[in-house]
Amino acid sequence: MAKKRLGNQTIQLQNNPVIISTGSIVGPKEGEGPLKDYFDMILKDDLFGEESWEFGESKMVREVIKMAVGKSDYVLNQVDYIVAGDLLNQLMSTSFAARDLKRPFFGVYGACSTMSESMSLASMIVDGGFSDLVVAATSSHFCTAERQFRYPLELGNQRPMTAQWTVTGTGASVISSKGEGPKIKRITTGKVIDKGITDVNNMGPAMAPAAVDTIKAYFDDTKDDIDSFDIIATGDLGIIGGEILLDFINKEGYDLSSVYMDCGIEIFDHKKQDTHSGGSGCGCSASVFNGYIYKKLKKKEINKVMLVSTGALMSPTSTLQKQSIPSIAHAVIIEN
Amino acid sequence: MAKKRLGNQTIQLQNNPVIISTGSIVGPKEGEGPLKDYFDMILKDDLFGEESWEFGESKMVREVIKMAVGKSDYVLNQVDYIVAGDLLNQLMSTSFAARDLKRPFFGVYGACSTMSESMSLASMIVDGGFSDLVVAATSSHFCTAERQFRYPLELGNQRPMTAQWTVTGTGASVISSKGEGPKIKRITTGKVIDKGITDVNNMGPAMAPAAVDTIKAYFDDTKDDIDSFDIIATGDLGIIGGEILLDFINKEGYDLSSVYMDCGIEIFDHKKQDTHSGGSGCGCSASVFNGYIYKKLKKKEINKVMLVSTGALMSPTSTLQKQSIPSIAHAVIIEN
Repeated sequence: MAKKRLGNQTIQLQNNPVIISTGSIVGPKEGEGPLKDYFDMILKDDLFGEESWEFGESKMVREVIKMAVGKSDYVLNQVDYIVAGDLLNQLMSTSFAARDLKRPFFGVYGACSTMSESMSLASMIVDGGFSDLVVAATSSHFCTAERQFRYPLELGNQRPMTAQWTVTGTGASVISSKGEGPKIKRITTGKVIDKGITDVNNMGPAMAPAAVDTIKAYFDDTKDDIDSFDIIATGDLGIIGGEILLDFINKEGYDLSSVYMDCGIEIFDHKKQDTHSGGSGCGCSASVFNGYIYKKLKKKEINKVMLVSTGALMSPTSTLQKQSIPSIAHAVIIEN
Repeated sequence: MAKKRLGNQTIQLQNNPVIISTGSIVGPKEGEGPLKDYFDMILKDDLFGEESWEFGESKMVREVIKMAVGKSDYVLNQVDYIVAGDLLNQLMSTSFAARDLKRPFFGVYGACSTMSESMSLASMIVDGGFSDLVVAATSSHFCTAERQFRYPLELGNQRPMTAQWTVTGTGASVISSKGEGPKIKRITTGKVIDKGITDVNNMGPAMAPAAVDTIKAYFDDTKDDIDSFDIIATGDLGIIGGEILLDFINKEGYDLSSVYMDCGIEIFDHKKQDTHSGGSGCGCSASVFNGYIYKKLKKKEINKVMLVSTGALMSPTSTLQKQSIPSIAHAVIIEN
């Protein structure tokens, strides 16, 4: 077994990659939610001064990466790799942001699991001795995602109560081989899990089994203590998916109820903000981790976190072809 | 500078990740081309027995990964990570293949640069001590790509002579920390380059500057000798892009003419097969590398290769929004 492996799906980083700084930008609606004081920038309008929502989202990615690097002691030209992606076809917002940032770029796609996927790869690049400075970032945007995955916004389509609200948000983590800050300690990489759910307006139940599989793999591989965590945060299972997760993983012998949160549940006040089952999108766990969770880690209000971003990998084409929703979840364990 | 870095964009792997086996599958048209004897499997029909082209492509990915692992001394359950992607929205063919393969999965998107992107990340994972066995794979399919990026096939749209023909093909490399075979020695990761080309029926000229940038970065970083290479292979610049590459890089002081090939030029007999400027798609460099080039390396007919898969990162949405084509190229240096 390779020297850094702890088991079937988990690795132990040995050189302590540090998250030296982060950035977060969210849209106006997210800026009215319960976590509003934790985000670095709240947009006044969804277009961010651009001519299309897609380019508004792309500008968010570009600016959040500049912001995160700007908070460190480094400059953009010292970043060896950007590992990033988004929900749009051909990673449109990230690809165009990477063009403007002019740094070596690995595009990744894991639907809403992309934040922990990009953090996993970025910290492996640093831990493996390939770089001293890598940025991991992802984004999503309500207007670009809704019209790509569901219906034109102008249609004003009614949303079932199981639906989630795609977060307009982005987050970036600057990961370094040295410096001060919370450290990425372990990574558990998910498999694609598909329990046959076909309703794209009810993605929590599709993704929850993937989160169960990955979290169970972590504890099986490491025999770590649930109570040593301050937070185990899934990406965007929402209210329905979050309940399923707690129930299913309890049946596997792991009771997470005392440390569990879901970024999609926390980001909105669902009754007041009419967001039904919760927030979703890559930008959900990206903004909540890089805003809320990271800042609490930095202040040592919490000291050990598992971030489990959760992605539904269906495509509009696969949905038209009557396929179910394959899902994936990646876990990153971060400690002070 | 991190210990494995050679310069601004290049790293030197220190633990000799080995490509212990590969697999390649192509469609019927590619199976009539000049490289037909090098592919492991030639499909009799583009659907591969499935009900949609997308699921035909997905089956190709699943089967090529099984085939590549099957040729090694390992079984699928010993693969720690699959790093893979394709051209389809939400990586549809790869996501569904990964579901069936049940191994930890990192989805990547670099358009037609995805083969060298996935090989880069897979070999960093092995070299960094995180795994002894990783699979890198990508695919493309004429019928799925054409209808997603251009027009319905039923339209029978006329193709300009600058257009390239998306290869129906897939390839997988099994990368290990030990064993016999060609070794991945160095990696140069590309930046997104955009020189303002807007014609999606003429992608070679859009991608050629990205290939120039990455190849120049490699030689600037390493001072390596061009003549030490047997082959420097771009992914799919085609006839027009290939000429531009040789011309532009010559102006930078590097004459590649004696060692240069392009996978998109070699895979078809363009006059007989009516493929205009050449082949394209992730599956082009994937099948040509894992079929043709790897087999020549294994037989020691050649000993040192640079694979530079080249990707055009435009999206149909960005094209409708009148944007130019951002492009990227990643280089992987493989030696016996």
